[in-house]
Amino acid sequence: MARLVMKFGGTSVADLDRIRNVARHVKREVDAGHEVAVVVSAMSGKTNELVAWCRGAAALHDAREYDAVVASGEQVTSGLLAITLEGIGVNARSWQGWQLPIHTSDAHGAARILAVNGDEIVRRFKESKQVAVVSGFQGIHKETGRITTLGRGGSDTSAVAIAAAIQADRCDIYTDVDGVYTTDPRVVPKARRLDKIAFEEMLELASLGAKVLQVRSVELGMVYGVKIFVRSSFDAPEDIDPHGEPPGTLICNEEDIVEQHVVTGIAFSKDEAQISVRHVPDKPGVAAAIFGPLAEASINVDMIVQNVSADGATTDLTFTVPGADYERASSVLKKAKERIGFDRLDGTTDVGKVSVIGIGMRSHAGVAAQAFRALADAGINIRAITTSEIKFSLLIDAASTDSAVRTLHSLYGLDK
Amino acid sequence: MARLVMKFGGTSVADLDRIRNVARHVKREVDAGHEVAVVVSAMSGKTNELVAWCRGAAALHDAREYDAVVASGEQVTSGLLAITLEGIGVNARSWQGWQLPIHTSDAHGAARILAVNGDEIVRRFKESKQVAVVSGFQGIHKETGRITTLGRGGSDTSAVAIAAAIQADRCDIYTDVDGVYTTDPRVVPKARRLDKIAFEEMLELASLGAKVLQVRSVELGMVYGVKIFVRSSFDAPEDIDPHGEPPGTLICNEEDIVEQHVVTGIAFSKDEAQISVRHVPDKPGVAAAIFGPLAEASINVDMIVQNVSADGATTDLTFTVPGADYERASSVLKKAKERIGFDRLDGTTDVGKVSVIGIGMRSHAGVAAQAFRALADAGINIRAITTSEIKFSLLIDAASTDSAVRTLHSLYGLDK
Repeated sequence: MARLVMKFGGTSVADLDRIRNVARHVKREVDAGHEVAVVVSAMSGKTNELVAWCRGAAALHDAREYDAVVASGEQVTSGLLAITLEGIGVNARSWQGWQLPIHTSDAHGAARILAVNGDEIVRRFKESKQVAVVSGFQGIHKETGRITTLGRGGSDTSAVAIAAAIQADRCDIYTDVDGVYTTDPRVVPKARRLDKIAFEEMLELASLGAKVLQVRSVELGMVYGVKIFVRSSFDAPEDIDPHGEPPGTLICNEEDIVEQHVVTGIAFSKDEAQISVRHVPDKPGVAAAIFGPLAEASINVDMIVQNVSADGATTDLTFTVPGADYERASSVLKKAKERIGFDRLDGTTDVGKVSVIGIGMRSHAGVAAQAFRALADAGINIRAITTSEIKFSLLIDAASTDSAVRTLHSLYGLDK
Repeated sequence: MARLVMKFGGTSVADLDRIRNVARHVKREVDAGHEVAVVVSAMSGKTNELVAWCRGAAALHDAREYDAVVASGEQVTSGLLAITLEGIGVNARSWQGWQLPIHTSDAHGAARILAVNGDEIVRRFKESKQVAVVSGFQGIHKETGRITTLGRGGSDTSAVAIAAAIQADRCDIYTDVDGVYTTDPRVVPKARRLDKIAFEEMLELASLGAKVLQVRSVELGMVYGVKIFVRSSFDAPEDIDPHGEPPGTLICNEEDIVEQHVVTGIAFSKDEAQISVRHVPDKPGVAAAIFGPLAEASINVDMIVQNVSADGATTDLTFTVPGADYERASSVLKKAKERIGFDRLDGTTDVGKVSVIGIGMRSHAGVAAQAFRALADAGINIRAITTSEIKFSLLIDAASTDSAVRTLHSLYGLDK
């Protein structure tokens, strides 16, 4: 017997038929003797509709009211799933965020989970094996008593937080892919599903845009040691052996991965823009003068490269922003030209970013050097390089991105 | 300055445009210096959609889950109205039933309000004139902490209960008619809007199918002395003088009606069926033997006529049921034939019921006699008669219903 959290996203509960499919997945685990808490998102499209109504109601809407409106989507799904489960003979009840309660910060629309009370869920497991169907994405602020939401993808975070609270053996994230891949299979057909990946690696992958899991849920999993298992919701529930090893990717502690690879995966993005600020004075405060105004404009800066000044007086600073923010970022900087004191701005949206991730890099020297050689052999020019302990990122021409990803995927033995 | 509750039903909040219209109604009262609590229903159609989903999820659904799902409709509307109000400069916040809280019984799907805590609403009136936007139709059961709903039309009841809790000067029910009429204007073009009607009269009218207000809300209004004002939500908010006397009907205590009429209004229904049970033994327990099985089958019996036995051994019993229940009622009785011991069943769905209502009947003799005479003169045959203190009802041929209503409307001076 295990204690499981099962999380289903919006496409998995999009209509009554899909909800019935989810119910059969849950019944399979219950019949196998497991204690189950289910976390659900709103029916797909529902949240967008509710958000559109809030925006239509007033240009600047009160985030507390927005949360009350938007959280209703999950309330509907959890109730419907509980009804469906009871209809097939599974003892179940729904829980709203405020009922458990799930306490969050008061940052409405993007609240952080502070504490989850799972006592009543566990008590009912023991009393009657009752399945808890919990509305994801939502909570309550303790002092004000108002409904909060966690922001997009928040149901992943709800699931992992609940798994931590009830000390679940595993948190299963059912999604529209059957796991985490070494890279995007649409670009590299030989991409393989990883059986296991370390939390730190998944954090890098998730924040680089492998849209499998919300970053915050991986952070929580790492802090509380919750094993997160990413698996497909499209498999027929009856085809799965609840005691077997279903296909999917386990996100776990580094120590739980016996067969470690130097490189685990390759993330990439073609939606990047590069901006170079030329001949800025090489003195304290200049980075703040550049990145302060960008942060105020809510522009997300990713790679930052600043080389050591050659002449000791001025230096060049290069960084990337999302392609869609390029024009806005340029205009923000031009307005601050006097304060920053740069000579000129160069930039292009014609760049791609490739990141190589692997915990093994910590103990293996020369991993990046291999990449530089292989890309040079393939005639791909590297514009900029940044590195961290378990990752290095390369900025290249946009047109070379796919080719670079394929080259590196082979280089590090990920083709198998 | 007055303290008001304003209630808006589903068609009044059907989309963002209509919600904006409601917000302007509210702003008008706030600008006039009033303290305002608003009660809203779900957007029209929404509740039906949610109910259909519950039914689709399982044939027999858990009423507690049904309530969680269905109550989400009002949650959306209250949030959207609060956003819209803030957008036009009116300080407002939404309240769910569990937030105030509104405590109800645990009869999920048809719960009764037990207590409303209006302290926080009043505190915020005094502190900042904040408008309370309350989700109608819902509450919470204290012991289980689960969401409850009050059943169809429950938002009227929510509004009156909140008005009682915050000791409002008036509870305005905005609806798609501009008040309560002496009878249905589609049948009697001369029907007039009543300026005032007593609670007792409205109870008879409401339970007879004048679908302006939920019966329970009128009962509550009577018990707690809440003045209920029925008015139109279609008037342009800006055309109404908040200090004037808007068109509508005030439901109030008998004592508050200075100019009393003998007859206040005439209700009728063509959707009736008459069943006569012939030659049942005239002995104790026979009525129970007939109406017990009908109650168990949830068939609503209305008029019941039993005459004094002529032979001292057997009697005839006649009663009405909704037309749609006729076949079912007949079959229930046939099954119980032996136990009841009747000779035969007569029945028809070809009947109409006309009810004449007026508190003045208490002190005026011969009111019904006038009707019998007038209908006889019009060639309308009376099948059965029942009377109560402030009402009498006549069963006639369906085809004569409209003509009977017009005759009586003139007879009692309601044509003006």
